[in-house]
Amino acid sequence: MVNKERVPIDSLNPSVSEQVFIRGWIYRLRELAKTTFIILKDCSGEIQCVADSAYTRSLSLKLDQPVEIKGWVKPDSRSSRGFEIEVTEVFVFNRVSHCLPFNSSEDISEIGIDTILAYRPLSLRNHSVGDIFRIQAAILHYFRQFLWEKHFTEIVTSKIVSGGTEGGTNLFEIKYFERSAYLAQSPQFYKEQGVAGLERVFETGHVYRAEPHASSRHLTEYYSLDLELGFIEQPEEVIQLEKELLTYIFEMLNENYGDIIKRYRSQLLPKMTKVPIWEFQECLERLNQFYNRTDLTDDLDPEAERQLCQLAEAETGINALFVIGFPLSARPFYTYPRGNNGASQSFDLLFEGIEITTGGQRLHKREDLEQALRQRAIDPISFENHLQMFDMGMPPHGGLAIGLERLTSRILSLPSVKQATLYPRDRYRISP
Amino acid sequence: MVNKERVPIDSLNPSVSEQVFIRGWIYRLRELAKTTFIILKDCSGEIQCVADSAYTRSLSLKLDQPVEIKGWVKPDSRSSRGFEIEVTEVFVFNRVSHCLPFNSSEDISEIGIDTILAYRPLSLRNHSVGDIFRIQAAILHYFRQFLWEKHFTEIVTSKIVSGGTEGGTNLFEIKYFERSAYLAQSPQFYKEQGVAGLERVFETGHVYRAEPHASSRHLTEYYSLDLELGFIEQPEEVIQLEKELLTYIFEMLNENYGDIIKRYRSQLLPKMTKVPIWEFQECLERLNQFYNRTDLTDDLDPEAERQLCQLAEAETGINALFVIGFPLSARPFYTYPRGNNGASQSFDLLFEGIEITTGGQRLHKREDLEQALRQRAIDPISFENHLQMFDMGMPPHGGLAIGLERLTSRILSLPSVKQATLYPRDRYRISP
Repeated sequence: MVNKERVPIDSLNPSVSEQVFIRGWIYRLRELAKTTFIILKDCSGEIQCVADSAYTRSLSLKLDQPVEIKGWVKPDSRSSRGFEIEVTEVFVFNRVSHCLPFNSSEDISEIGIDTILAYRPLSLRNHSVGDIFRIQAAILHYFRQFLWEKHFTEIVTSKIVSGGTEGGTNLFEIKYFERSAYLAQSPQFYKEQGVAGLERVFETGHVYRAEPHASSRHLTEYYSLDLELGFIEQPEEVIQLEKELLTYIFEMLNENYGDIIKRYRSQLLPKMTKVPIWEFQECLERLNQFYNRTDLTDDLDPEAERQLCQLAEAETGINALFVIGFPLSARPFYTYPRGNNGASQSFDLLFEGIEITTGGQRLHKREDLEQALRQRAIDPISFENHLQMFDMGMPPHGGLAIGLERLTSRILSLPSVKQATLYPRDRYRISP
Repeated sequence: MVNKERVPIDSLNPSVSEQVFIRGWIYRLRELAKTTFIILKDCSGEIQCVADSAYTRSLSLKLDQPVEIKGWVKPDSRSSRGFEIEVTEVFVFNRVSHCLPFNSSEDISEIGIDTILAYRPLSLRNHSVGDIFRIQAAILHYFRQFLWEKHFTEIVTSKIVSGGTEGGTNLFEIKYFERSAYLAQSPQFYKEQGVAGLERVFETGHVYRAEPHASSRHLTEYYSLDLELGFIEQPEEVIQLEKELLTYIFEMLNENYGDIIKRYRSQLLPKMTKVPIWEFQECLERLNQFYNRTDLTDDLDPEAERQLCQLAEAETGINALFVIGFPLSARPFYTYPRGNNGASQSFDLLFEGIEITTGGQRLHKREDLEQALRQRAIDPISFENHLQMFDMGMPPHGGLAIGLERLTSRILSLPSVKQATLYPRDRYRISP
C-alpha cells in the first residue's frame, strides 16, 4: 500500500500535474485486448480509469473489488467529467467472492427482499437500493433542520419502560435483572413531559409493537419522527405545522435529490400546504357515496385509505388528505374531544394511499384525564405517576408522529415498508 | 381563550400599536400593593409584564402557571429589552399544585437526582437542568452536521438482534413471540455493513448493556454517537477525524452557547486538534513514574484515566489524551493488531478524567477474522452470517463510538452521567 494522501473522486482536479491516489470499488470493468476501462466509485462520485490490459490481466480484477488506483489525471473530451485517470498502479484491498448473486452495477429490480437483505452490504452499494437510504438520511436531516429553526429541542428518551402508553397490549417484554420491563411503544408520555418543560420538543427514535401479523405496512420495530408542542388552541395548528414541515422536506428533496426522486416516481414531490382536511364523518359519507362502502364505523381500513386518497386527488390534485375527528372511543384515553358528539381532536395524514402520521391535541387537565380513564374502566390510580405531570403547569398541547419507513416508501413509491428499512423486523425476522 | 395569534416572546416588537397575545409560564411573580410584575417565559425568551394588582389578585396567580397574557408593548428604559408588556388580561390555562418541591426560577443545585427525575417536567423548565438538555441537543445537531458535510450517510439499524457483537455477556433478553431475541449492545456489525455499502456511515441511537453495577459512569441504556469509514490505512485517521469533529462541536458550542457553558465550567471548551496520542505501554510507564502504579496490565481503571488526563494537561494544557495500542487480548475479536507485540489498533479518548470514546481499525479480511475467532476458542462457523460480508468487497475500515451522556456530562462538568440523561436506566430504575 502506498502512503500518499487519497483524493476523493469528486475533488479530482485535471490541473494537477502529479500522480494521484484514489480509492473505491470497481463499479464497471471492460477489458479489451490492449486497454482496460475501470469505472471507480467512492462515496463522493465515479471516474473512468484507463489501464494497460497487460498489467490488469495479471491482477485478475473483478467487479466490486475495493482498490486503490494510482495514476495521472488526463483531459479527455469524451468523458463526462472532461478527464479520466491514466492508471499506473492498482492495489487490491480485499477479495470478492466468486458466487455473489449480483453486482453493484447490475439491475437488481427482480431480486427478492430476502436476497437483498442477506447481501445488504452489496445491495447498499447498488444505486437502486443505496439511494433509498440516502433519501431516508436526507428526510431525517431536513426533518430535524426544520424543527431546529423553530425553537424545538431534540430529546432522547428511554425505550425501556415499566408499562405501555395505550394499555398493555402488543408490548415486548424484556428480562430486566430480577423483574420485567417493556420496549416503549411510543415516546408519547415523554414528549408531553418535554412540552411541560421545554414547550417544543422532537425525537427521532425506535418504537416497538409486538404485532403478530406481518404485512407490507407493518414492522415490529420502526423509526418514529415525533414532535410535540405546547400552547396550541386546536389540532389544526399541528396540522399546519406538518404541512409546512413536509413541504420543506419535499422541496429540499426535489431540489437536492431530484434525479433520484424521478427514478422512483413519475413526478417530483408535491407541495403539501394545499392538502385538504376532511372530517372523519365526511370521509365515511364520501366512501359511501363513491365506493358504496357502509362497513366502516369507528376507523378506516387500508382499502378506505387508498380510496380517500384517490378522492382527494380527484378534487385537489394531491394524492393526500388529513382526516380529523376520529371517534374518541377508538383513540387513546389522552385524546382531546372534538365537540360533544363523540369525535376527537385526533387526526391522520393519508399520503399516496397509506396513513403516515397520527397526531392530535391531548388532554392537559388532570380532571379530564381522570374522567377519560374512568370512562374506559381504568382506575386513575394506576396512572398516578403519569398524571402528576399535569399538576406542574401543563399547557394545552398536541403533536404527531411520522413513521420514517412509511414516509420513505411513499416518497419513493416502494411497495413495502421493508424495502425502506435497513434491517426490518417482523414476527419471523430478527436477522441480519 | 382568545383567538388572536400568539406572538413568540423573542418576536415582540415595540413599534406594534395594537395589543399582543403572548403565552408561557409565570417565571417570576412580584405582587406589590398597586402593581404586579410578572416575568413570562416561553421557548423563545422572557419578558417583563406589568399588571394592576387589583386585577391579578382576583386570579390568584402562581409561579409556573401556564398563561396567556394580552397587553400593550410599552417602551421602558429600565427593562433589559427596552420595553415591557402592560397587561390588560390574563388567561390561566391550567392549575399548578400547591406542593411542588421547587419552582422553575429557583436555585435547585441542592436538590437530589430522585426529586429532579420525579419532577422531570418542572426540572426541565428550570434553566440549570433545561440547559443541560439544550446543550445535549446542540451536541447531536453539530455531530450530525459535521458528518453530513463529509459524505457520511446516516443509518438506522435494528436494536433487536439475535446475538451479541462481543460475545454473549451483559445482554438483555427480549421475549420475541415464540423465541428469544436481545437488545443490541452496539451497532458495530451494522456499521461495518454500512461501510461495505456506503463507505462512510454514522448512527445516533441507543445501545444496551445489562451491567449489574450502578455507578456515576454507567447506564444500562445509553445513546451512542457512532461512525465508521472505509479506505483508511491506520486508526490515526479515525483519531484525526474525531479531533476535527470535536473541535467543530466545541467551537459551535462556545460560539452559540458560551453563556451556558461558562455557568457550568470555568473555561470555554478547548481546541481538540492538539490533544496528544500516547501508546498504551507509554501510559503504563507514566503511571508508574508519576503515581507509582504497578497494578495495571491490560486495561486502565477510572483512577488511571483521571491520572493520565492530569499528566496530559500538565504537558499540553488540555485535559485529554488519546490512548492507542491497548492489548489485543482485551479488545473484541475484530480488532486490528498494531505491530507484532500483542498490541491493537484500538484507541480510547480520555477527556477530563473519563473515557468518552472507544474506536479503532477493524480487521477486514475473512481469513484474519477467522483466525482471531479461533484464537479466542470460538468456532468461526458460529459467526458465519457475519463473516459473509467480508466476501463482498470490504475495504480496510475503522470507526468510533462516543457516549452522548458522558460527553455531555464532561462538557458541563456534571458529577454523574445520570444528570445528563433525561430518563436514566440502571439496575434499579425503569421509571419515569
